[in-house]
Amino acid sequence: MEKEHGAIFEQGKQSIKIPIPIYIRASASVAGTKEGEGPFGDLFDVVGIDDKFGCDTWEEAESTLQKEALQMAIGKAGLKNEDIRFLFAGDLLGQSIASSFGLGGFHIPLMGMYGACSTCGLSLSAATIVIAGGMARYTACVTSSHFASAEKEFRFPLAYGNQRPLSSTWTVTGSGAFVVSSEKSDCDRAMITGLTIGKIMDFGLKDSMNMGACMAPAAADTIYTHMMDFGTTPEDYDKIITGDLGYVGQKALFDMMREKNLDISKVHMDCGIEIYDSSQDAHAGGSGCGCSAVTLSAYILKQLEEGIWKRVLFVPTGALLSKTSFNEGQSIPGIAHGVELISCKQ
Amino acid sequence: MEKEHGAIFEQGKQSIKIPIPIYIRASASVAGTKEGEGPFGDLFDVVGIDDKFGCDTWEEAESTLQKEALQMAIGKAGLKNEDIRFLFAGDLLGQSIASSFGLGGFHIPLMGMYGACSTCGLSLSAATIVIAGGMARYTACVTSSHFASAEKEFRFPLAYGNQRPLSSTWTVTGSGAFVVSSEKSDCDRAMITGLTIGKIMDFGLKDSMNMGACMAPAAADTIYTHMMDFGTTPEDYDKIITGDLGYVGQKALFDMMREKNLDISKVHMDCGIEIYDSSQDAHAGGSGCGCSAVTLSAYILKQLEEGIWKRVLFVPTGALLSKTSFNEGQSIPGIAHGVELISCKQ
Repeated sequence: MEKEHGAIFEQGKQSIKIPIPIYIRASASVAGTKEGEGPFGDLFDVVGIDDKFGCDTWEEAESTLQKEALQMAIGKAGLKNEDIRFLFAGDLLGQSIASSFGLGGFHIPLMGMYGACSTCGLSLSAATIVIAGGMARYTACVTSSHFASAEKEFRFPLAYGNQRPLSSTWTVTGSGAFVVSSEKSDCDRAMITGLTIGKIMDFGLKDSMNMGACMAPAAADTIYTHMMDFGTTPEDYDKIITGDLGYVGQKALFDMMREKNLDISKVHMDCGIEIYDSSQDAHAGGSGCGCSAVTLSAYILKQLEEGIWKRVLFVPTGALLSKTSFNEGQSIPGIAHGVELISCKQ
Repeated sequence: MEKEHGAIFEQGKQSIKIPIPIYIRASASVAGTKEGEGPFGDLFDVVGIDDKFGCDTWEEAESTLQKEALQMAIGKAGLKNEDIRFLFAGDLLGQSIASSFGLGGFHIPLMGMYGACSTCGLSLSAATIVIAGGMARYTACVTSSHFASAEKEFRFPLAYGNQRPLSSTWTVTGSGAFVVSSEKSDCDRAMITGLTIGKIMDFGLKDSMNMGACMAPAAADTIYTHMMDFGTTPEDYDKIITGDLGYVGQKALFDMMREKNLDISKVHMDCGIEIYDSSQDAHAGGSGCGCSAVTLSAYILKQLEEGIWKRVLFVPTGALLSKTSFNEGQSIPGIAHGVELISCKQ
């Protein structure tokens, strides 16, 4: 085991243990109308009355989601924009334009990230690494997705009215933002204590209407690696939470974990399954960068804050496809990044 | 000034000073045919004999560039793939598919980055931050661009045969990869001593055929901020090197720096200007993530390695547009990330 500059890594292990307390000081969630009608509707900070959020295009609407979520998170943290040393952000759109056009006005140094729907875990990891490395006092991260901009980007324009198979997921309209710091405060929502940066996992699946199955191998690999690196079992967590596997991906994940002799079915939760209820016709569940981000901010951190959950492994999952790769007949590789969250109420 | 865990930051300053030596241990460049015929042709590690690099599509060709560059850089560093703790990678294609399909086979934990053509500076910064924070012994970064995949992604398919205005740049076909470590070795190419993560700068310009002008404000802001944070003047550097401003953007950069009472014209170099010679009909110069990446690996690090240059400020520049944002009439914001490089031969 090596210890340099306050962070610990062990040669041959994939995870980073964060021995100094790193806090999620504040967070905010902005969600769309369908999400507002779902089970977490009352928990979001803002629910739009119209999914265009007062803008002319879906892309601008998504940028507005990010802008509002980040501004609110910084405000809740009791900070000003200039206090945030680095911003980590990304989204699903080509060339991450939701972030580029949403965040320019903040004038915060920006490290752009891309991890598809795993971006919440990726950006939270990067924000934590910079703090743990002593290179900032406050960092922030934000990510988003929008149903209409994502359908246009990846599948069909809404006007085409295509039928969606039952294995398809519904891209969440929403943005979640988080302020991270090593300084303790009265409003900390949870502590970040471990990170497992994921690897690309490609089982050769090609169905963009069944992304849960495409991402399940990555989720299984990251969860398994995290538990091996930290010497834990499923029983050590109140929840192991994936991003947007949906019903189909969840089943695949359970099967893969059982092959490794681990049963996570009792503690597993998937943000995509929870964000809509069965009456909302979302088929396999919610998806998108916004899915895990708004669920983390509105629901997961609330449970940790209140001490209902003590220890959570949060594993947003991403499907690394594009319209071009899909049309060229490529597979859909997955990636998943794990963030261990501990309640400040011990 | 605060010092925690071996890295130094000063509240209110944008830059990170890296007080412990961080080395670029090895690097590799793979370039296309046109780049091979240019001034740096003899310096690239590999020049393809055909820009499809044996693949069926331009996107797969670009993935192959990344794969070859990274494998070669890891080999030159005397390391195995499993020695690399984190990989930082990104490219210009929607959803970064050149990286997703190029890097899966390495089985290295991946943090996906997006900074358009500034990605070389961004990923090098992230790779350095993780090492400086003591969270890894070896990290690597890789980025790429390909003329044909970029034209298809951003402008017109090649078969359309559109005319290009003189202000347009030519996307470089190439990939550069770098291995970073805090461990000294015999093969170190240069040291990384300071980072300035850039902010999004948007002057409202909208011409995707004149990206140099769109990115110049970001380059000017990052160079100015870096010099203010480190208390330096242009004379302190052997070279201040931008990524792909080209001739048009260079002129805009000089004008903006003069407004800040700084004349960088004597020490400025732009990778986009240098990578092709005037007979190659590249108009305003080269561009793309690959432009600054292959120039850094093949030429800039060579100058530093040989001690011809002692101190360089390397500032890759990115234009944060997409086909969608362009078609929706949006401006083209820019971003630029600064990396200070010092020769190991002092």
